[in-house]
Amino acid sequence: MTEARKKIILNAFHMCTPSQQWAGTWKHPKDHGTDYNTLEYYVELAQTAERGLLDGIFFADSIGLMDKYGGGPWEAIRAGGMAPMNDPTLVIPAMAMVTKNLGFGVTANLTYEHPFIMARRMSTLDHLTKGRIGWNIVAGFVDSGARAIGNEKLRAHDERYDMADEYMEVVYKLWEASWEDDAVKRDRANAVFADPRKVHRVDHAGEHFRMSAVHMCEPSMQRTPVLYQAGASTRGRAFAAKHAECVFLTSYSKEMVRNHVNDIRARTIANGRNPNDVAIIVGSTVITAPTDREAQEKHRELREYLDVRGSLSIFSALAGIDFSKYDPDDPIEYIKNDANQSFVERITILSKGKKWSVRDLTAFQAGSPTAGIFLVGSPATIAAQMIEWVEETGIDGFNLVRTAEPVGLAAIVDLVVPELQNRGAYKTAYREGSLRNKLFGHGDRLSDAHPGVRAARASVKATVE
Amino acid sequence: MTEARKKIILNAFHMCTPSQQWAGTWKHPKDHGTDYNTLEYYVELAQTAERGLLDGIFFADSIGLMDKYGGGPWEAIRAGGMAPMNDPTLVIPAMAMVTKNLGFGVTANLTYEHPFIMARRMSTLDHLTKGRIGWNIVAGFVDSGARAIGNEKLRAHDERYDMADEYMEVVYKLWEASWEDDAVKRDRANAVFADPRKVHRVDHAGEHFRMSAVHMCEPSMQRTPVLYQAGASTRGRAFAAKHAECVFLTSYSKEMVRNHVNDIRARTIANGRNPNDVAIIVGSTVITAPTDREAQEKHRELREYLDVRGSLSIFSALAGIDFSKYDPDDPIEYIKNDANQSFVERITILSKGKKWSVRDLTAFQAGSPTAGIFLVGSPATIAAQMIEWVEETGIDGFNLVRTAEPVGLAAIVDLVVPELQNRGAYKTAYREGSLRNKLFGHGDRLSDAHPGVRAARASVKATVE
Repeated sequence: MTEARKKIILNAFHMCTPSQQWAGTWKHPKDHGTDYNTLEYYVELAQTAERGLLDGIFFADSIGLMDKYGGGPWEAIRAGGMAPMNDPTLVIPAMAMVTKNLGFGVTANLTYEHPFIMARRMSTLDHLTKGRIGWNIVAGFVDSGARAIGNEKLRAHDERYDMADEYMEVVYKLWEASWEDDAVKRDRANAVFADPRKVHRVDHAGEHFRMSAVHMCEPSMQRTPVLYQAGASTRGRAFAAKHAECVFLTSYSKEMVRNHVNDIRARTIANGRNPNDVAIIVGSTVITAPTDREAQEKHRELREYLDVRGSLSIFSALAGIDFSKYDPDDPIEYIKNDANQSFVERITILSKGKKWSVRDLTAFQAGSPTAGIFLVGSPATIAAQMIEWVEETGIDGFNLVRTAEPVGLAAIVDLVVPELQNRGAYKTAYREGSLRNKLFGHGDRLSDAHPGVRAARASVKATVE
Repeated sequence: MTEARKKIILNAFHMCTPSQQWAGTWKHPKDHGTDYNTLEYYVELAQTAERGLLDGIFFADSIGLMDKYGGGPWEAIRAGGMAPMNDPTLVIPAMAMVTKNLGFGVTANLTYEHPFIMARRMSTLDHLTKGRIGWNIVAGFVDSGARAIGNEKLRAHDERYDMADEYMEVVYKLWEASWEDDAVKRDRANAVFADPRKVHRVDHAGEHFRMSAVHMCEPSMQRTPVLYQAGASTRGRAFAAKHAECVFLTSYSKEMVRNHVNDIRARTIANGRNPNDVAIIVGSTVITAPTDREAQEKHRELREYLDVRGSLSIFSALAGIDFSKYDPDDPIEYIKNDANQSFVERITILSKGKKWSVRDLTAFQAGSPTAGIFLVGSPATIAAQMIEWVEETGIDGFNLVRTAEPVGLAAIVDLVVPELQNRGAYKTAYREGSLRNKLFGHGDRLSDAHPGVRAARASVKATVE
């Protein structure tokens, strides 16, 4: 059998909150978002995703609510838009219990926690899920998180990435080098749970972190979780090319995506890695129904439930602009004095030829900066467009943005997935083993070509006899 | 119907590790401790506990392995004694899925995490378990944890408790006062998930912590988790009397326990609280079988699997003495130059009239400092002794120390529980509602008489219009 096409990666993109960037979807009669604080919600979501052979559910997160709009999280709270927001780590063990193959990506912010403690949490999750954990590495998000823990503002952007590089150095040592592969014996006859000569203390004294301890967990199936990263800046791309195995983009034009993909692949090669060891995944809103007309109708219906001020609250935090100063119907030109240069450029590209108002920034349609890729249509229409995006830009897959759930995801699973399979563009069964092996097919562990891991192994080896 | 006797509280005492203070039990043919890193292990444990109407499973924890003995965690690792040790928080959601009434106590150390982040994790757990979470407040445990995160030694003992008091002040504000009871509407018709006028920012600027943010979670069933504490020092007791709802003791003589109980109750009253709002629970090893003789036989059999050096490794970390300097058969007098005064006093009381050697410190028998209360016998023998302890000392229940599991717990559930029920000393059904209501019967929330909560409510109210 020939593999006609590259197999597309599909993740469900979620948070533990009533509704996400499409604020207000919890009001849709079929949406279960008001149950975001129950285990039942996540169990249903996981079962739906695994039925569709999705690669994973990816949980975004933020420390601190979105509080730029009007100087507080008030409109976000009113609209149930990324507020309230529970800790996503804790829903994963329950989802792991009801699935066998689905992966789980979880966002953990390295600004708030010592690497020794974060490494232990991730190892525990990798054990409990039998190797199905990915970690989305975030080094700061919104200023509200910094204020929440008593720092006035986030550190400067590049400094955060320098700290993040050192953080990675520490966690690689813990995950990859503290316990050798054959350290654990479970040998009842000789009273040896593990051979301590094969377990090593990690000593680290750097600019940002110090530590001296044995990793608290024995090696899990993957050791290092699958590493996700979403930084789009130059420094962020350099970080991703060194560390990441999955890179998330939010973009709107094929040209922008193609340039970004080429840049990431080139940087990956420059780091001595195989460019295909990095999967590039783009955020996408997908609305589907049996026919194009029904899908358009569904799009119109969903739009009625969207909350303009709630969505602008979220976009205010992301863009760093308080949109509450404007009427949603103000022309977009009004904001240009408040916005930084790159934002103005982005808006100029996006609104080209159209008279935008402020509300268009979060409009539920193709071309709005919130949307990412925005696809509406029958399964055949969606499948054709997805394959076109993959072939024309070099991306590997899509993060499916939450709309009304789990019905939105179920429609993709039941309608689009078979259509992609028919075209040879989607797997018909999961691969064996860990999330890493399911994604890349070359084993459960990070390869020796990964520069961070190679250095960590060498460094700890050097300190032992 | 008259309630003949006070209903005894029973918790299973656990950690996410192959074996605990009785190091080596994982070698027992019926023990499942080598599966400590799987969800299946905890699911079976939770189902066994709920079958016996246990009040909860209480998870101890430590940041950093036990590394005093021989200058490293090497013997602990060899023996599988509290090493490796996974994060216990993450097994709770899976256990919550398979139970309806069982409570979950989890240890979280306030030295390592900002209160804003810890408060969010606990609120998430309280939501996901529908109000069944307790938090064991720990302010430092072993020096290895401090070294693990780059601080040479733990802060001075009393200073840690001062910091802990301020930490509690912050989390009370987040849990009890940031969101009013009627803030959350889930009102689809009016597009109001929550009314922001009833949600308040917590501003705190103290000696140890600063923060300014809305709590990220809506109110959970209990708001504040049930508060556990285990400090035995004078400063620790003062902290417990102000904050705790359950106090854990490890003790061996009824006289010591009675004095401790009386002291805690008096301090609770001095804090304006009802002395019965604090449950006092003692660590106990219980070995039972249908007859006394069979129980003695089981005791002898279990003893064969215990690991002397592994147990001494754990006890070294707790006592702050490196017992590897001695042969296990050295007379106990040899250690007196290394031990601090209170340890020597304790040992003198315990060993009275007997020629102890070092190995007796962790001997699997009544009277060893590791044992706590040590009960061996038929169900009738155990039930009679438990009731005697409760009536003679004023304690409220027992933390059942892990032996070979889950068979050890199952024997207590199947044999001792019915015997206690027959004597009117144990519930025959769970109470409704949250863990707090099941334990105390006066509602899901902390009462206004709790001094920390009262202050938090007043403080946040003062900052809003």
